[in-house]
Amino acid sequence: MKLNDLISQITPVQSELKPELLAHLDDLTHPPGSLGRLEETVVRLGMITRSLKPEIGKKVIFTFGADHGVWEEDVSTQPQSVTTGMVETMCAGNAAINILARQSGVENRIVDIGVNYDFPADMPNLIQRKVRKATSNMAKGPAMTQLEAEKAILIGAKLAIDEINSGAALLGTGEMGICNTTASAALFAALLPCPVEAVTGRGSGVNNTKLQHKIDVIKKALDVNRQELSTPLGTLAAVGGLEIAALTGMILGAVAHKTPVVIDGFISSAGALVACCMCPDVADYLFYSHRSAEIGHSVFLEHFGHRPLLDLDLRLGEGTGAALAMNIIEGALKCYLEMPRFSDSENNISPCTIEPDA
Amino acid sequence: MKLNDLISQITPVQSELKPELLAHLDDLTHPPGSLGRLEETVVRLGMITRSLKPEIGKKVIFTFGADHGVWEEDVSTQPQSVTTGMVETMCAGNAAINILARQSGVENRIVDIGVNYDFPADMPNLIQRKVRKATSNMAKGPAMTQLEAEKAILIGAKLAIDEINSGAALLGTGEMGICNTTASAALFAALLPCPVEAVTGRGSGVNNTKLQHKIDVIKKALDVNRQELSTPLGTLAAVGGLEIAALTGMILGAVAHKTPVVIDGFISSAGALVACCMCPDVADYLFYSHRSAEIGHSVFLEHFGHRPLLDLDLRLGEGTGAALAMNIIEGALKCYLEMPRFSDSENNISPCTIEPDA
Repeated sequence: MKLNDLISQITPVQSELKPELLAHLDDLTHPPGSLGRLEETVVRLGMITRSLKPEIGKKVIFTFGADHGVWEEDVSTQPQSVTTGMVETMCAGNAAINILARQSGVENRIVDIGVNYDFPADMPNLIQRKVRKATSNMAKGPAMTQLEAEKAILIGAKLAIDEINSGAALLGTGEMGICNTTASAALFAALLPCPVEAVTGRGSGVNNTKLQHKIDVIKKALDVNRQELSTPLGTLAAVGGLEIAALTGMILGAVAHKTPVVIDGFISSAGALVACCMCPDVADYLFYSHRSAEIGHSVFLEHFGHRPLLDLDLRLGEGTGAALAMNIIEGALKCYLEMPRFSDSENNISPCTIEPDA
Repeated sequence: MKLNDLISQITPVQSELKPELLAHLDDLTHPPGSLGRLEETVVRLGMITRSLKPEIGKKVIFTFGADHGVWEEDVSTQPQSVTTGMVETMCAGNAAINILARQSGVENRIVDIGVNYDFPADMPNLIQRKVRKATSNMAKGPAMTQLEAEKAILIGAKLAIDEINSGAALLGTGEMGICNTTASAALFAALLPCPVEAVTGRGSGVNNTKLQHKIDVIKKALDVNRQELSTPLGTLAAVGGLEIAALTGMILGAVAHKTPVVIDGFISSAGALVACCMCPDVADYLFYSHRSAEIGHSVFLEHFGHRPLLDLDLRLGEGTGAALAMNIIEGALKCYLEMPRFSDSENNISPCTIEPDA
């Protein structure tokens, strides 16, 4: 599979189904529209899956871990080894994503796509797909080659497709990588486009001085790599990250197989933006789970008019917001599939129509 | 038990625990504060339950059904029999509240506190506690006597307390009653207080003409009953409803037993407002689950500075928003209890502190 082949498989959602989906919703024994955004959610699920009865299948979140060469520019409060430590915690089932996934009946997969550490070959619960150990320092040149970026994309796509073939009906995104708010801010600045200042935040907690330094480093990276920024793939390779590339691929793979994807927070949205730049039809397949407290996320969401399902000031990543939102999406679908209908003859409740004004 | 005895059992939450709860949160292996409102939620759960390790117990939502005499003023699009029909649907396990409760691992209880219908004595899944068949028409006099309102309150309180004694650690509110947006708007207007227009919305879908009529009816009810409005109990009896009184009691009973309560939407908030007017310490025990699309709800929430967990344009009631929010609250608690700590010697991740500015 090549990237262009993958993209060529993507088709628009089936918007012709909308009237029938809405009619089914209005036939449920409730005041029309009273389930609010749960109803919008179901209409989108129907158009994405080309079905008036979308299936409730397995829910799976992929959390991709990778390191970033730009770490050497001192743009984070954290040592790079925290990526390794958190991947170990996730594989042990103890991180926030594991806990919230269990809580919402979601399976999670932890993938090493570029962590700067050699994990044991038999490490439990780790899917080992390392493209390389960390990217290069984007302030000095491209973070990776376009070939490496494409490789990470195709790995993400294959993982998504295999999971769909094994029964997954709803996929979610997650990530872990020290310095990945730096890479994501660079991608937003280049691809929206917008000023670097508007999308650069404190990540794990940098102070004002280091925040200004982080902005300067991103500006330098965009300048050093300016000739690479003419395509989404070139931009991803130059200033992105391996986990972001894998998320882009996971999204493209799911969308090519008509499967909805729940986007976690700031970094996952950078992966979604790259996918949407590569193929604008992708946008209609995505659910934004939550509004991250990382300041640039609102800039991105408002640029496209996205209204996420949750607004809980989360800024942890890993897929935590996606896990919480999946419970709401599945609940919406269950209401649609299981509530009695006015048109059901066993029902003695009459349709509840909104009175027109004279 | 009398109402005054119940209220006298209520004490403020244990705010002295806040520093220890925050210290435990900061010790979890994550950037401090990065779980956002999940962390606020846990701090409140700790202060409410007087515990640094709040228990994950049974989650239960009570949905109280009742009818309203003001229905004869033609303030709804719906026949009164819809209350009965929906109570039957809920007892059969098919309504949105049943579906969303199952989805979030919540048990639900359906209670007839004043439905205008004689259910069979052996009706499955119905808790029969009818105080009277519907209230009187509040546009012509008090909806019920203060004795009846107190009776409904104490029934709600006893149900909550019995459930807590059987292991419930988190209670939620729900209701079903044609015309109960009318009663709730009257309570908000009287108790906030605020103009009737600000809190009167379309309920199940009245048009502009009927909305103006609904406002006029509420104004008339507040005028006719003006001598009853000097106390919260008098106001509840005069312009409230039996399901709202039962919700007030359920909240007071839970709070007297140091148990958090998740408030559903507009009507449940009216019950919460009455409880808070009776005893201001109640407020710190409540979680507002969602911002209802019924316009008056935002007026109420902003009056007190409440920021609900969800904003999904729901306006169905039944407890649907509470069910969805309970999943988030339980997820927050599980993160707090289960995530590894920096201070755990088996952990090789260092604490991640926010850098101070120079």
